[in-house]
Amino acid sequence: MRVKMAKNYGFCFGVKRAIEIAQKNKNSLTLGSLIHNPKEIKRLEQDYNVRVQEEVQSVQADKSVIIRTHGIPKNDLALLKDKGAHIIDATCPYVIKPQQIVEKMSANGYQIVIFGDANHPEVKGVISYSSTPPLIVNSLAELQDQNLSKRVALVSQTTKQTPKLLEIASFLIARCAEVRIFNTICNATFDNQEAVRELSQEVDIMVIVGGKTSSNTKQLFNIAKEFCADSYLVEDFNDLEESWFNDKTLCGISAGASTPGWIIEGVREKILEF
Amino acid sequence: MRVKMAKNYGFCFGVKRAIEIAQKNKNSLTLGSLIHNPKEIKRLEQDYNVRVQEEVQSVQADKSVIIRTHGIPKNDLALLKDKGAHIIDATCPYVIKPQQIVEKMSANGYQIVIFGDANHPEVKGVISYSSTPPLIVNSLAELQDQNLSKRVALVSQTTKQTPKLLEIASFLIARCAEVRIFNTICNATFDNQEAVRELSQEVDIMVIVGGKTSSNTKQLFNIAKEFCADSYLVEDFNDLEESWFNDKTLCGISAGASTPGWIIEGVREKILEF
Repeated sequence: MRVKMAKNYGFCFGVKRAIEIAQKNKNSLTLGSLIHNPKEIKRLEQDYNVRVQEEVQSVQADKSVIIRTHGIPKNDLALLKDKGAHIIDATCPYVIKPQQIVEKMSANGYQIVIFGDANHPEVKGVISYSSTPPLIVNSLAELQDQNLSKRVALVSQTTKQTPKLLEIASFLIARCAEVRIFNTICNATFDNQEAVRELSQEVDIMVIVGGKTSSNTKQLFNIAKEFCADSYLVEDFNDLEESWFNDKTLCGISAGASTPGWIIEGVREKILEF
Repeated sequence: MRVKMAKNYGFCFGVKRAIEIAQKNKNSLTLGSLIHNPKEIKRLEQDYNVRVQEEVQSVQADKSVIIRTHGIPKNDLALLKDKGAHIIDATCPYVIKPQQIVEKMSANGYQIVIFGDANHPEVKGVISYSSTPPLIVNSLAELQDQNLSKRVALVSQTTKQTPKLLEIASFLIARCAEVRIFNTICNATFDNQEAVRELSQEVDIMVIVGGKTSSNTKQLFNIAKEFCADSYLVEDFNDLEESWFNDKTLCGISAGASTPGWIIEGVREKILEF
């Protein structure tokens, strides 16, 4: 099997930064998974004793707590501070931006519209900075029956697709007097998406490597499927099935922003063997 | 010939208001045509001695000057004030809005993008309120090679089509960190356009009545042509040609926002005779 890597894939700036922070802070906790990749989380636990704590209430007062790349809700941060925990902020700077925007725009009287998944930790964090109840929509359809104000501010979860943000923006512009649109989709996501769009059109099988709860990995998988019917999402080389590669000659590979290089390399080597 | 009028057509709020102002101010000047309809301008001159003055420099100090619906450049207004002219403002309130927005947004450091025709008096007026050189684009194509700032404010000439504004907005959103979009397209324009879109699909000939320099009339004509190949733009009943109506049974009629009722009625009556 021949293999072609996407032009851009894998770790983004925010994830690299968070892992470096974790490696420098042995024996600390992370509140929720630092990044959305179970295998990398396991490695950090084994090699650096950086463990995941799910509940803010359970954090001990004297603990060092790393804030995950996706950020955490404002109240949880306040609670950690109240407890006197030593806080190490690994929130991606691209995630801090929509938090700040939502805080400022809601204070200035704009209705907040967040394009994102209400259950994703990044969005939960961003929502918490709005002083008024925001609208959270994961698609244009979810916006159809909502009451809109005259002045609306729109931000996006950093890992969303630009064309869908544009659909939502267009809907708002046609209906509101002023729409303030902050394009908070991060370039790394965009570049990885563009590269998958391109590569999936020239191969006969696509393999996307990444955590199954990772939003940006799922987006890559969805884009790949659009252009290449034989697209697969795997967490590591163990998920690969040889039968997928029957009658195929060229396999494209990409990986989510939270997928470490050593996992991608494992997948690449196994595919080359087929 | 059967005739069907569009659901919405003709005089908008701003034009009605300007004509009432002109009729109340006999013997005054208008700086440029009050509205874009030569025949109505002639009527105001004959019946009310309201005359058009093209050059601000030629205005006499003691004159009453009516500001046209499209507004005038800031400097011209200042010059009139310096001269001590008696100023009567008939600028459409929907045109004052983009003037104010451009003034405020350029002062706040936003790059100004105006979707409009740089030679149209309304746009000339709006441009003059920007403290930095704005980008003026009449289509998405004109925006392609421009240098864009991170923070952009977009306004539209009031008579433009919403789908084209959305194209331009989408282009900017994908490239800029923040785009502040002020939908300054006026409802009357929108309603007239929607009504033409609907009607031109159910008739076999469309006649649009309006001044040939009127931007919104030309827009209606363009929409009509999209759906009905046999569409015509006339200034009054004299422009109608009987041959257009051969083999036709149902004629749709609409009219621009500056077309007076008496002209539309003349066209309708003549068509009914065919």
